[in-house]
Amino acid sequence: MSYSLTQAQDVTSYVNPFIGSSNFGTTNPGPIAVRGMANVSPFNVAGPQNLPFEKDSRWWSTPYVNENTLLTGFSHVNISGVGCPELGVILAMPTTGALETDYKKYGSTYTNEEASVGYYTNHIEKYNIKVEATATTRVGVSKYHFPAGESNILLNLGLGLTNEEGAMIKVVSPTEIEGIRSVGSFCYYKAEEAYPVYFVARFSEAAPEFGVWKKPKTHTGLESQWMGYNGKTRLKKGYTKEVVGDSIGAYMRYNFDKPTTVEMKIGVSYVSIENARENLEKETQHKSFNQILADSKKEWNSYLSRIKVEGGTEDDKTVFYTALYHTLIHPNTLNDFNGEYPKIKTRETLKTDGTRYTTFSLWDTYRNLHQLMSLVYPKQQSNMVKSMLQIYDESGWLPKWELNATETTTMVGDPAGIIIADTYLKGIQDFDVEKAYTAMLKSATQIENNPLRPGLKDYIEKGYLTTKTIESGSVSTTQEYNTSDFAIAQLAKALGKKQDYKLFSKRALSYRKLFDKEFNLLRPKNDDGSWLTPYNPEYGANFQKNLGFIEGNAWQYTFMVGHDTKGLIKLMGGSANFSKKLQEVFDKNQFDMANEPDIAYPYLFNYIKGEEYKTQNLVQKLIKEYYQNKPAGLPGNDDTGTMSAWLVYSMMGIYPITPAQPIYTISTPVFDKITIQLDTEYYKNETITIEKETLTNGAIKSIELNGKPLNSYFMSHDDFVNGTTLKVIQN
Amino acid sequence: MSYSLTQAQDVTSYVNPFIGSSNFGTTNPGPIAVRGMANVSPFNVAGPQNLPFEKDSRWWSTPYVNENTLLTGFSHVNISGVGCPELGVILAMPTTGALETDYKKYGSTYTNEEASVGYYTNHIEKYNIKVEATATTRVGVSKYHFPAGESNILLNLGLGLTNEEGAMIKVVSPTEIEGIRSVGSFCYYKAEEAYPVYFVARFSEAAPEFGVWKKPKTHTGLESQWMGYNGKTRLKKGYTKEVVGDSIGAYMRYNFDKPTTVEMKIGVSYVSIENARENLEKETQHKSFNQILADSKKEWNSYLSRIKVEGGTEDDKTVFYTALYHTLIHPNTLNDFNGEYPKIKTRETLKTDGTRYTTFSLWDTYRNLHQLMSLVYPKQQSNMVKSMLQIYDESGWLPKWELNATETTTMVGDPAGIIIADTYLKGIQDFDVEKAYTAMLKSATQIENNPLRPGLKDYIEKGYLTTKTIESGSVSTTQEYNTSDFAIAQLAKALGKKQDYKLFSKRALSYRKLFDKEFNLLRPKNDDGSWLTPYNPEYGANFQKNLGFIEGNAWQYTFMVGHDTKGLIKLMGGSANFSKKLQEVFDKNQFDMANEPDIAYPYLFNYIKGEEYKTQNLVQKLIKEYYQNKPAGLPGNDDTGTMSAWLVYSMMGIYPITPAQPIYTISTPVFDKITIQLDTEYYKNETITIEKETLTNGAIKSIELNGKPLNSYFMSHDDFVNGTTLKVIQN
Repeated sequence: MSYSLTQAQDVTSYVNPFIGSSNFGTTNPGPIAVRGMANVSPFNVAGPQNLPFEKDSRWWSTPYVNENTLLTGFSHVNISGVGCPELGVILAMPTTGALETDYKKYGSTYTNEEASVGYYTNHIEKYNIKVEATATTRVGVSKYHFPAGESNILLNLGLGLTNEEGAMIKVVSPTEIEGIRSVGSFCYYKAEEAYPVYFVARFSEAAPEFGVWKKPKTHTGLESQWMGYNGKTRLKKGYTKEVVGDSIGAYMRYNFDKPTTVEMKIGVSYVSIENARENLEKETQHKSFNQILADSKKEWNSYLSRIKVEGGTEDDKTVFYTALYHTLIHPNTLNDFNGEYPKIKTRETLKTDGTRYTTFSLWDTYRNLHQLMSLVYPKQQSNMVKSMLQIYDESGWLPKWELNATETTTMVGDPAGIIIADTYLKGIQDFDVEKAYTAMLKSATQIENNPLRPGLKDYIEKGYLTTKTIESGSVSTTQEYNTSDFAIAQLAKALGKKQDYKLFSKRALSYRKLFDKEFNLLRPKNDDGSWLTPYNPEYGANFQKNLGFIEGNAWQYTFMVGHDTKGLIKLMGGSANFSKKLQEVFDKNQFDMANEPDIAYPYLFNYIKGEEYKTQNLVQKLIKEYYQNKPAGLPGNDDTGTMSAWLVYSMMGIYPITPAQPIYTISTPVFDKITIQLDTEYYKNETITIEKETLTNGAIKSIELNGKPLNSYFMSHDDFVNGTTLKVIQN
Repeated sequence: MSYSLTQAQDVTSYVNPFIGSSNFGTTNPGPIAVRGMANVSPFNVAGPQNLPFEKDSRWWSTPYVNENTLLTGFSHVNISGVGCPELGVILAMPTTGALETDYKKYGSTYTNEEASVGYYTNHIEKYNIKVEATATTRVGVSKYHFPAGESNILLNLGLGLTNEEGAMIKVVSPTEIEGIRSVGSFCYYKAEEAYPVYFVARFSEAAPEFGVWKKPKTHTGLESQWMGYNGKTRLKKGYTKEVVGDSIGAYMRYNFDKPTTVEMKIGVSYVSIENARENLEKETQHKSFNQILADSKKEWNSYLSRIKVEGGTEDDKTVFYTALYHTLIHPNTLNDFNGEYPKIKTRETLKTDGTRYTTFSLWDTYRNLHQLMSLVYPKQQSNMVKSMLQIYDESGWLPKWELNATETTTMVGDPAGIIIADTYLKGIQDFDVEKAYTAMLKSATQIENNPLRPGLKDYIEKGYLTTKTIESGSVSTTQEYNTSDFAIAQLAKALGKKQDYKLFSKRALSYRKLFDKEFNLLRPKNDDGSWLTPYNPEYGANFQKNLGFIEGNAWQYTFMVGHDTKGLIKLMGGSANFSKKLQEVFDKNQFDMANEPDIAYPYLFNYIKGEEYKTQNLVQKLIKEYYQNKPAGLPGNDDTGTMSAWLVYSMMGIYPITPAQPIYTISTPVFDKITIQLDTEYYKNETITIEKETLTNGAIKSIELNGKPLNSYFMSHDDFVNGTTLKVIQN
């Protein structure tokens, strides 16, 4: 990367890791490195004391929720901002007194909870232990401040957020434990692709006593009458061999004659125990907790400070930088320090030169997150595209919702190509674009055995999926395929493939066949071409499963044709009708800030001359209403940073309104001045700025781009990044 | 070892490995090397088709029973001749057609079953596969003759004879699989000492397709409604990472265009996967199945032919050599090829120079098996004593019922010292006798926390255990401690420790306080010294749990004071009463040939002048009745060779009547001439012979030892082994 070496201001203090840890934001306040594989999250979602937010009592997808009170440890691999249970394993818990291995008994309340970038601390009340935690990319580092007396560090491989089970654990020495935990079945799906995460834990103090435990299943058959030990937890003191099974753990036990601090480092890997050990050594050996923490903050600051803001309140800065922080968690690093990572599905060991990223929640992130990466962190975005191409090389298909080298196939559509086109069209082109194009064409054209585009035959033949083609979401899926086809067309054009450009430009508009004048909304069609009848376009809100739409209804989807907004305006009978209908979405409470399909809606008034102020007002209002400096300060699931990326762009006053179209639409920035540091490996300027001039904080009066009046609320990516300043002048 | 190099006659053809595979003999016909760690046993005790001898439907302790019909694989570690479930894991099964991983579905009947030393074969009907198997010390070797078409080799780590669960499996390459299986809780006891067995499987044909499976537990809670995969077996094709859990396996899959033979070698270890791999390579690399089989037969012959018999029927020879074969299975090898073995209980890796033996079922084997080893295989016996001392070094205590580096503490008494004394007194003295003596004294004197002699306080203070001291077996346990104390006394005498000799000689007779004139039998006493009342001395037969005796009653135990038979004669009021009472045991059907306490009873008539013929008749009758050339040809559990050792001695016409007393009592040999090859490292002569001269097969008329008349039915071990010939002359 090539950035100018200006002294970086410390902006990490503006990150509040608790934002999103309530209201189903599903982020956690535990320390993590930039795009880290390891993350030390407090785990407080197990045990009846945590009802109603208890992991086994409902569909529950985060290791931590701010309002819960019972801590049962710290999990070392976690996903941030998702709606499905997975990971949340390798649970470490410090306790004192007699050894107790049942989390329902050893759990404790806690106080003095604080978190900042790369740091978390609390005080475990039951045991009078202060815990501090930090992390490198692949290592979680904890400091346990024990009082004098008997103390224990438990590594529980039975407990976890995932509903998968199975583990191996082995005490290697009085200062080291290694193990494997089986995880998987994201969204209660594809359990057959459960996979192992490996770890090595090292302790700064040699344990004079250690051991393992195993809680076997309870036998009910005839044999149980002879099994006095039936279902009882077994302790194996001093045991140094592998223990395997579903509910197992290991412990280190001390008896301190004075208060003593133990540092524990847990290196993780998705390749092998050896790699977990190497990750631990290469990233943390000979480094104290404080040094690791300082390095972490420094790294975070180097990323976060690439956008500098002036003006705004302290809370504005906090929600902004916390959102930027959330966009830097996923996609995260999959490869080990030595470059090794598991091949998709088969998990053979492969090696990468750059970073192999994972946790590609692409249905979410194609809309804005990758656009933010292309602007501010183009090197990372380039590596993300390369990771997608690695997945294509390995599996024959681009990713859809890839997680730790498994394709979860969650959600609908064919989103990878949209991101690839968007990235390429923004000038980030240091990847094999011909290969990428071939991959995109494959999912757009292969009728049989196509994991990315089910229903493609109907889509190609009829222009849309029908209520017969798939169980639910025939309209949504048609729209997603349109968007992907638009991306192919745009990339084809850039690559001089005129035939394809024509073909896919046409395919991209086929959603129009699902536009029903009766409702002025999209409507599912049956296999014979008739409309689905009766039809209630409001049905589908609040995630009700329905024939036409995925996680939404006609209101939340109809405008999701950003590449053809002008076409939609015509379909609806002109600007006035369009504007009226769009306004109805908000007036009728059909707008859902917490999900992606309608996420760009507030910006669509910019397409109606004279109504841009509605966009400005709406965006300002939504920011204030949904994004706040408090645990419930995200509208819902962060969706691996998508909600946060929306905020970052919206607070800067620009938004990448149409995926795979390199333009931004303009609204009112929250800050007076925003300076974006550009990566000169990809961009010619070192910085660009957005400035706001305001008198009464009213509507935008005029806009200047690079000193010249901009007679539009849209600008091209090139004009922006190759210029110097976007100035927004308010009344 | 030093044996003269006479051309060995091939006696392996006289071994019938099916003997003991019915009538609860619990031996199996699968190939095993001399004292092998690995053993490829057909596994036919799972699945409802095998009822009533189905492993989960009753207390069941063997992987194979001759009358069952449904084969579900071949287990690679097994125990022979025990009464408790354990091992019977690493189950391999060849199948054809579509992949099926549920043993209840893939099980098959079989035909053409044959077995000989080191070899087993059958034909699996359902799949038309001929199986052949052989073994080296630590490697099971199988040959699967597949027809053309789809074929599978399954390695099922879910199924097993043990009721323990938990495993790890990993396909290393298209020709190799490695894994770990958790085993333990012998006798449904000490499950907390469950331990791992490691293995590496290699296949002669690279599998074009392979994979693993996992059958997860069935969730019943709220989450199960989202788990479409709940409880369903998952296949992971082409998967090469570790899979961990309770019910897992791996498969190799082929599609042969013509009938094809695949050789599979499975190396095992109790230390590590690496050692299992090294065991496999060092013992079988570059060796064909046929070469391994030939080597196995050769090794077996070199051991079996150390006793040569002439005369007798073919069946006599078969039951004799099969019995000798059974005495060469356990104790078996625990250490790996490189000498490494797990330390008792903690399982840290240690290294041995000689062989570290395991499966020390000492309550059984102290009575005759080790005496047979001392006579015929003194080097092995020396190593067995050294192994016991290693266990003492590692744990602080001699073994009681040691199994694969766990002390199962099964049965009662303190038997190791008896064996050590017996061995030493027979001139096998190349071990640290002072250490052994210290160890023996420890268990005889440490009152508190003594795992070998519970109730020792009462035993020392009162001379016996009371009905209050322990839950059951107060008399039996007193007798066992007496026997151990006698052994200490004898060894003390040999080592010149006169004080100890006196003390322990006295202690060894304390059983006398439990002799009740009313019954002329032993009887439990209460804590206050009164007799247990009411008292039925017959109670306790057929393994009924009772206050006085373990696995027996007063009839079966009273005469078990071999070191003080003369004292017992006096207690009973002289020879006539003694003889009458002893005869009653047999007449009243109280004699149990299938268990150890009364195993020496038939020889006790030799203590009554003029009644020796009763011993001769009884022994001949018992041999004929209980030991036959058929699957049901053992009286019951072989007890790791104890029943077989009784037979070997009895057929030779001599018996080591009193443990820790180096004497043999004499009866009628079955064979005309028996030549025992001696190990000249321990004995001065190369061979000794036992000869029978007979006219009418009547009672013994006279006995000559080394050419001189022997005016007794007893001879010392020294007189025998340092001489040339024992001649028994019958009427």
